Amino acid sequence: MFKKILIANRGEIALRVIRTCKEMGIKTVAVYSTADAESLHVRFADEAVCIGPPPSQLSYLKISNIIAAAEITNADAIHPGYGFLAENAKFSKICAEHDIKFIGASPEMIDKMGDKATAKATMRAAGVPCVPGSEGILESYEEAEKIAEGMGFPVMLKATAGGGGKGMRAVWKKEDLRKAWDSARQEAGAAFGNDGMYMEKLIEEPRHIEIQVVGDSSGKACHLSERDCSVQRRHQKLTEETPSPFMTDKLRKQMGDAAVKAAEYIKYEGAGTVEFLVDKHRNFYFMEMNTRIQVEHPITEQVIDYDLIREQILVAAGVPISGKNYTPQLHSIECRINAEDPYNDFRPSPGKITNLHAPGGHGVRIDTHVYSGYVIPPNYDSMIAKLITTAQTREEAISKMRRALDEFVIEGVKTTIPFHRQLMDEPDYVAGNYTTKFMETFKMKPIE
Amino acid sequence: MFKKILIANRGEIALRVIRTCKEMGIKTVAVYSTADAESLHVRFADEAVCIGPPPSQLSYLKISNIIAAAEITNADAIHPGYGFLAENAKFSKICAEHDIKFIGASPEMIDKMGDKATAKATMRAAGVPCVPGSEGILESYEEAEKIAEGMGFPVMLKATAGGGGKGMRAVWKKEDLRKAWDSARQEAGAAFGNDGMYMEKLIEEPRHIEIQVVGDSSGKACHLSERDCSVQRRHQKLTEETPSPFMTDKLRKQMGDAAVKAAEYIKYEGAGTVEFLVDKHRNFYFMEMNTRIQVEHPITEQVIDYDLIREQILVAAGVPISGKNYTPQLHSIECRINAEDPYNDFRPSPGKITNLHAPGGHGVRIDTHVYSGYVIPPNYDSMIAKLITTAQTREEAISKMRRALDEFVIEGVKTTIPFHRQLMDEPDYVAGNYTTKFMETFKMKPIE
Repeated sequence: MFKKILIANRGEIALRVIRTCKEMGIKTVAVYSTADAESLHVRFADEAVCIGPPPSQLSYLKISNIIAAAEITNADAIHPGYGFLAENAKFSKICAEHDIKFIGASPEMIDKMGDKATAKATMRAAGVPCVPGSEGILESYEEAEKIAEGMGFPVMLKATAGGGGKGMRAVWKKEDLRKAWDSARQEAGAAFGNDGMYMEKLIEEPRHIEIQVVGDSSGKACHLSERDCSVQRRHQKLTEETPSPFMTDKLRKQMGDAAVKAAEYIKYEGAGTVEFLVDKHRNFYFMEMNTRIQVEHPITEQVIDYDLIREQILVAAGVPISGKNYTPQLHSIECRINAEDPYNDFRPSPGKITNLHAPGGHGVRIDTHVYSGYVIPPNYDSMIAKLITTAQTREEAISKMRRALDEFVIEGVKTTIPFHRQLMDEPDYVAGNYTTKFMETFKMKPIE
Repeated sequence: MFKKILIANRGEIALRVIRTCKEMGIKTVAVYSTADAESLHVRFADEAVCIGPPPSQLSYLKISNIIAAAEITNADAIHPGYGFLAENAKFSKICAEHDIKFIGASPEMIDKMGDKATAKATMRAAGVPCVPGSEGILESYEEAEKIAEGMGFPVMLKATAGGGGKGMRAVWKKEDLRKAWDSARQEAGAAFGNDGMYMEKLIEEPRHIEIQVVGDSSGKACHLSERDCSVQRRHQKLTEETPSPFMTDKLRKQMGDAAVKAAEYIKYEGAGTVEFLVDKHRNFYFMEMNTRIQVEHPITEQVIDYDLIREQILVAAGVPISGKNYTPQLHSIECRINAEDPYNDFRPSPGKITNLHAPGGHGVRIDTHVYSGYVIPPNYDSMIAKLITTAQTREEAISKMRRALDEFVIEGVKTTIPFHRQLMDEPDYVAGNYTTKFMETFKMKPIE
């Protein structure tokens, strides 16, 4: 087993990994930017190394500094968390070259799944249903037009290096394709340094349902059931739940089998997520595979009493997985609490938290790196806490979330607590009747 | 279902009950003494009524004020929590007379189980194993001496109205019996207004293991497995766990069956706990039955995903129980965080909490009514939080408790956090090798 793990991340996920390491008796090294010196992940790690100033390019994305920190502290493994370098093939490769175990996917796997077009071609070869569309990268605008006309509008143009909605365009008729093609390529080139595009049939009113998988070095994989992440705003997930209210036993078996087949086909090692779009007829299509821990992993942990970070570490150390597929016996919901103003187009609201009181009690879990007096830096994403409730039924989990949100006090900055509180009363949400389009028509009620 | 429940208690248990009421859509009324005006249970209830000043006799024990608060606010039920009026037959009776549902045992049941000697006689009649001893109250010193000589020393003298170790004496030889008899009677008379005594064979090196039961109005009962509460100081529980490290499948079945038999024999309604002493040969003896929710109920909730307060409310409203006995699939530990100085004979340490940071994350639950800036009044018991960790194995639950205790920051008052942190490293505790005598030889290590 590893003796010391460096966590190449910040915020709640850095703290999350440190907690499990402590519980496993593994020493930890935090790295931090000068903007994060007062963060809890720095305080709770056994050692902490400053790796530079913000922005992230000078610290959390600066591979040389992170490798140096690992070498100085003699860490034998690196956990990358999510975001930053978690799906960076070069970083995974450099770790291996320095004889430091990267707790995540191999460089080859990241390359294979990180390039969306290659990922889709691979999944098609594995027999996993994919959204109809181009075979790999579009060579020209003319090819895009031909494929779109072949399968019929609406279509979706997507950047092959994409993420977070950047370089993505829905196109409803031929006349709009040229403009969308140009602007998406330009956006992708600026965001990712790669303007490669692919095309898919646009699935109308889809649900985003993902399957958590775990694989080990023997090539065996299993699935830990689904998470419904359809409540999104500009392709950013806001709240997630498991089981999906749209799920049936039959669909779970089909999607679970497909996800396990996908993972075993590519000999996936570690924890990963196979994301699907599910249409209203319960047809499902491979969207992408994330070769890392997800923000929303706690809801899976809650319903199957399983520590996913622990499992990542064990698999990385060569321990075989149990190979058992899980079906949730409970219901769990996560609300991402962001320092954003839901009354003002979710505008980020960094600054000092002057007072914090977190809810507690039966069925309530909180993962956060902030505390009363903490100053949220403006340099990073705005998520400051994850509030997770778990109960025997969906109705009870929603009730629990309502009362937990009512108890949650964060003063000094604006947060998305009022958004989630309203969401938990929205008839369509309560009925489980929502798609990825849900937020397009959602409006905050005026403050009373 | 009830429309509005008054919670006749304070502190964490009042908040605990309010939380479940909110989740069930039931309105709540807090009552509070002038010393508790700033407590969270007052803030989170829908309504709050001040019922007088400390000490408790003038407020939390003042039945007329509590009934008046219920009538003013139109509450249709009262939840008594634990302590105070939770096992007061008169209060239960007065509630019934005022057409307010008492969420607890009937006056007759409280009388039957509250008087320890009567309880034992009842259990013996039900066929539940009891510690050998006097049949009911000792009529005279001479009878005490005769019974002690008949079953052999050591023996235990106990006040029939007792609790918290008051009016209780271990007697190892005949010469010491007279003095123990006199002093125990005097202590019991002063504490409870009742100097009735009974006698039991003293069980050497016993474990305190209790079985949680739930019964309904049809007379059906089931058990929710055991809690090991052997780590006690002066008969006050400090930490509890489930399953008991001493438990076997066979013993759990025997004790569970005995507890269900006990509950069904007396037609017990609601949540109750049958406490047993278990000797080193795994013989078990009925000790007493608590006709209320216990402080340590969360560990049972954690391992069986069950809300016991909800179950109490449902049973009180006439909803039948499932009748299923549970076996824990997980392991859960509770540490009672008291505002006491473990380095100074656990002396109470009331005062202002100047800074509070609670641990969180996977497998961590906190039940507390305190917050940063809260002033702990000197008038009540010193428990300020319950920290509960849950994992797949005992070893993991202990590791999780260590890291959670390491994260827990409470400044301004002394707390038992350092005690629990040391306990979690004690070889005998880690080995599960402890009895109710454990604390007699426990010493805090000096602060480094």
